[in-house]
Amino acid sequence: MSEGHDDQAEVAADIAAVEQANTAFYEAMERGDLDELSGLWLPGEDLTISCVHPGWPVLSGRGEVLRSYALIMANTEYIQFFLTDVGVSMTGDTALVTCTENILSGGPAEDGGELGPLVGQLVVATNVFRRTGDGWKLWSHHGSPVLADSDDDDDEDTPS
Amino acid sequence: MSEGHDDQAEVAADIAAVEQANTAFYEAMERGDLDELSGLWLPGEDLTISCVHPGWPVLSGRGEVLRSYALIMANTEYIQFFLTDVGVSMTGDTALVTCTENILSGGPAEDGGELGPLVGQLVVATNVFRRTGDGWKLWSHHGSPVLADSDDDDDEDTPS
Repeated sequence: MSEGHDDQAEVAADIAAVEQANTAFYEAMERGDLDELSGLWLPGEDLTISCVHPGWPVLSGRGEVLRSYALIMANTEYIQFFLTDVGVSMTGDTALVTCTENILSGGPAEDGGELGPLVGQLVVATNVFRRTGDGWKLWSHHGSPVLADSDDDDDEDTPS
Repeated sequence: MSEGHDDQAEVAADIAAVEQANTAFYEAMERGDLDELSGLWLPGEDLTISCVHPGWPVLSGRGEVLRSYALIMANTEYIQFFLTDVGVSMTGDTALVTCTENILSGGPAEDGGELGPLVGQLVVATNVFRRTGDGWKLWSHHGSPVLADSDDDDDEDTPS
């Protein structure tokens, strides 16, 4: 807050780019587009990516992480994310995004062509991005189910 | 892997320092030492810290995060962490640690001086650290319950 006023425009542009990368991540999931999703994660193996789906153990490396998304997409007929409480914390070439994923999803029906029952789910995520020559790429995604409210924290629920 | 062989010793020292900071974080929890714990998180408000306890929503900023630890410590008579699958991924001044927290904990007994029943819990965590002049400090902690095994991923469960 107390320094760096001269490059506020640059910081604002960076934050907007990070928020866009974060949104693109969820939109690729909604479309079930594994190619698009693969391109949003850090490439190569110089920096090991990691991913935790709600209730899952840690997955590490592009092979393991992308296989998990292929599996999830194959078992998800419909999924939509309503993101709330999006907060970006950034320094240098690393950005940390926290958000609440209000999820509405449905699997394939068990007996034929119709959609299975829709399920609502409340998940919070910490997404870490790295700046690359090709834009901000995911380094880590950690999602977890919200099992209880903490209403007494409402006075400070606006991360910046 | 393919470059930077000349500073391998430096990288190894960095990784050791990050692992030590990660261990110190859990040891402070085990001792219920809130002052020690407070000093392990990034100071000030230039970079917003965030924390997700298993099943909780996102907490942001030192006030909210440290209050949650005070609350947890007040309600935890005994807690021990056995860390497994510790993986460090690092670039520049940011390090990302993933680990499995095998937790054994007990609350105060409801009727008097004895310890409450001990409970085992399996949690996975993504901890993000930043390098500071005073060592590596926590920027983000996200812990979540492991609700199901994924035995078919055993061939790749050694993050580096």
